[in-house]
Parts: sequence; C-alpha cells; structure tokens
Amino acid sequence: MAHPGKVEVPIQHLVQDRAAEPRQDAVAVEEPLEIRLDGEPVAVVMRTPGNDMELAVGFLFGEGILSKPEQVLSVAYCTDTSEESAGNVVNVLAEGANPEAFEAARRSVYASSSCGLCGKTTLASVRLVAPEIEPIGPLSRSVIAELPGRLQAQQQLFEATGGIHAAALCTTSGEVLLVREDIGRHNACDKIVGAMVLREDWPLRKRILVLSGRASFEMIQKAAMAGIGAVVAVSAPSSLAIDIAQELQITLVGFARRGTMNLYCGEIVP
Amino acid sequence: MAHPGKVEVPIQHLVQDRAAEPRQDAVAVEEPLEIRLDGEPVAVVMRTPGNDMELAVGFLFGEGILSKPEQVLSVAYCTDTSEESAGNVVNVLAEGANPEAFEAARRSVYASSSCGLCGKTTLASVRLVAPEIEPIGPLSRSVIAELPGRLQAQQQLFEATGGIHAAALCTTSGEVLLVREDIGRHNACDKIVGAMVLREDWPLRKRILVLSGRASFEMIQKAAMAGIGAVVAVSAPSSLAIDIAQELQITLVGFARRGTMNLYCGEIVP
Repeated sequence: MAHPGKVEVPIQHLVQDRAAEPRQDAVAVEEPLEIRLDGEPVAVVMRTPGNDMELAVGFLFGEGILSKPEQVLSVAYCTDTSEESAGNVVNVLAEGANPEAFEAARRSVYASSSCGLCGKTTLASVRLVAPEIEPIGPLSRSVIAELPGRLQAQQQLFEATGGIHAAALCTTSGEVLLVREDIGRHNACDKIVGAMVLREDWPLRKRILVLSGRASFEMIQKAAMAGIGAVVAVSAPSSLAIDIAQELQITLVGFARRGTMNLYCGEIVP
Repeated sequence: MAHPGKVEVPIQHLVQDRAAEPRQDAVAVEEPLEIRLDGEPVAVVMRTPGNDMELAVGFLFGEGILSKPEQVLSVAYCTDTSEESAGNVVNVLAEGANPEAFEAARRSVYASSSCGLCGKTTLASVRLVAPEIEPIGPLSRSVIAELPGRLQAQQQLFEATGGIHAAALCTTSGEVLLVREDIGRHNACDKIVGAMVLREDWPLRKRILVLSGRASFEMIQKAAMAGIGAVVAVSAPSSLAIDIAQELQITLVGFARRGTMNLYCGEIVP
C-alpha cells in the first residue's frame, strides 16, 4: 500500500556535466491538519498525513489542555467539512479539559511548522496572495552548483554551534548578496527579506534564495511574497513546496550537494 | 565582540569508552521576539538574537501586511517593556499596512519555530506549567550510544524522501517502543505522546525521547508536559532547551552520533 506520507513527483536529476536524467522522486507530503476539541478549532498544523489521531491527542497534551488518558472520550475525522478538507480535520471529544490552556492555545501564535488560520485546512486557504512573480528564466547549472558551498562558507553560527539554519540571497551569476542565520529557517528567510527592504533594494527580481536545509511550503511562500523567482535548497522540498512553486512558476532546486541537484520546477541549462 | 546568537555552556563530552571530558560548548541562542506594528502585537517568534529589525520587517512582508519599502517609517526596540523583555520587542512604524493581512496574522496560528502569546516575551512566560517530572536517574552510556542507530533503522519516510523528522520513545534499557515521522519535528513528538495516551500507557516514566534532529525549547517542553525524563538528540540543542532541561531536571544529550555525545544536563554512567 502506498504510504500517505509520501508522493512521487517527476524531476530532473542533474549530476555534474552529464545530461539531465528524468526521474521519479519520492517527496514527503505536507498538508494542513485542523485540530478541534469538542468541535471547537484549536490549531492548524502543517503535518505529514499519517497517525493523525495521535497527532491531535498529543498536541492537546503538549499544550496542557488535556493531561490524563481517561479524559479522551473519542477521536475521529470530522465529516462536516468540505470535500477538499476531508481527512484534514480531527475532532477530539474529551471531558475535563483545562479551559485556560485551551484559550491560550487558541489565541497563541503557537505551532511550529504550522501556518494558516483555524478553519483553513485546504491548500488554497493556507496560501497568501503573492504578487505576480517575474519568471527568473533558465539558470546556469554551474552557478547553482556553487551556491551551497558559498552559503556554507559564511555560516558562522553554524560553524560554532552546529545548530542553526542559514539563508542567502544570490544573483543569477552566483554572487552572494547577504547571508543570515537563525535557529528557525523561516526567521533566516525573514531576515533576508527585511534586510533588503531596509536597504530599499527592492523588488527582489532575478534573485535566488539559497537554503541550508529543507524547502517547506512556508519557505516558498516567503520567497513568493518577496517576488523571489528561484529557491535552491540543500535538502528536500515538501510536496506542498513543489505544488506552490509550480503554480507560481518559481524555480525550485533540492538536494543541491557536491555538484548534484534535483530540479523540481523551472529550467536549468548547462 | 561576542556574537549575540551564541552562548558558551559547560558540558561533558563523551567519546566511546574514554573518561568524560568537561568542555565549553557553543550553543545557538533561542529567545522569543515580539513583533509589533504601530504598537500592536502581531506575533511572537522564537528566534536567534541578531538582525532583529530585519526579522520584524521581513516577517511583515512575508505575511503580506507590508509590501513596499517606502511603507516602513521606522523600526526600533520598544522601551516600554519590562527589563527582562528588553531587546525582545521590536516595533515597526508603517503607513498603508494591509488591515486584513494584519488581522489574519494576529489571529493565525502562524510562525514556525515559534510559540507563546503576543506579549509574552520573557523566558518564564513562554513556558507552560509542566507536571513534576520524576528524575530518570543515571543513564547507561552504551544504551544511549545505540539509540540514534535504532531510530534511524526505522525511519521509513526519511529513507524514501530524505526530508522528514523522526522521534522515538525508548526505555532506559534501549528498547524502542515506537517511532513516528513527520515533516515537523514537533508533530513527530506529538504523535509519540498521542500514541501512548491512546494506548493508555501512561505516564511516560523512565522513558527517553530520541530526536533525529535538533532539540529546541519546544521539544523539551513537549517532553516535559508528558513527564518524559530524558531527551537524546542527534543534533544540537538550543540555549533555551538547555535552560528548561536544567530547571526541570530533564537529562539532555545532544550530538549523539557514532558513539560520541554531549551531555548538557543529567547523569550518564559507563
């Protein structure tokens, strides 16, 4: 049986000077899950489908809303949702929930790796309206191959701590304009965008965002909101990152390491 | 000058059968930053200090609240906060902000790698009240050294996609009770806790949480809320993760790889 947590997508696999090789690549699925307690939305988390009941219950325990197994009466997918949201809304019926913790979680800006509003469990609804992005056009394979090494050379905090993400903004000829580091990959990206805004070096046309880690939905969305036409990640993209890159015509490269790379969207020329 | 993004902490470095070596280890700083627009809180993100003005501005652009550099009138740390929050609240004065996007961001469960409520910018205030945790006692070095390999052997989705986190719950003798994978490290942890709740195998005394990646504040907090006494991470812990582990007497091991490990808190015996 196919695992709900992965999906196969067509890619171009590029190794140094060899001809691009069309391949099927397995990518991790990323989808929103809305968690409800007694019918009331608590949070939306971006998750990989599978073990959704466990995720909903574990989330409520992690927030201190529930604290004893016997408080959980039942856990089930909601059936009163739109067809598109089916399987992406879980309701936990419980007794003796902590009302302060429930309110705090509802109002809070919690939920790492999450986004969107309660009630927004479809792909379309977690998306912000990005400005029209000017397609960046074909990128040079040799330029892309150099970028991860150039980012790494400037990762001072990673060098010292081994525990931090980095993002770089580069030109299409491979010049590194700036590098920012943060414990949160999203923050590193926000720092890049904010720095360019404050320099009034805007919009970010013909720019490439290079990421030291994975490319999730939110990273592509942040690039899109800034008008950035290409994202190059050292690690894997998520299914949703690929979807949104295709829709917005953002060039997306993953696993850019030691001269090899996977092209998920866009065009790379030798 | 010391970089605000890292801090030195005393650790025990353990390499196979050699005597434990006391060391100073540089760890990435993790602290809450509250972002305000015209004095109104928008979000709290867990971030690494440094380039905070850029982070605040970039966040507002990423959310579509601002879209042009000329909308930004000024950016500064707030001075009307408590002493403890000083340097952790940034206010952006702007004109022509998008009110719908502002409201959406305020209400949303946004902000990966973030937590807490707006207005909660001190360490104490982002913490949930964890139950009293029974100290797990000294752990065996040889058992800990085996755990990352046992987790990796069961990372099916990672094996297929290269883009997914995993967490495992283990006994103090090294038995793997269950493994869960997710694109969000926090979700993998929630799935573990939820699964044990649904099995009514509770509380999680004498259990070790093993993480395929880094140990952030939220991961330790989730372990604490479930009463788990030890966390073993394959990668780095954050400063805040170490702080909360020390306070709650949770054993914290980082960089557990190929027979070496760093002990940040707790006791390991040969």
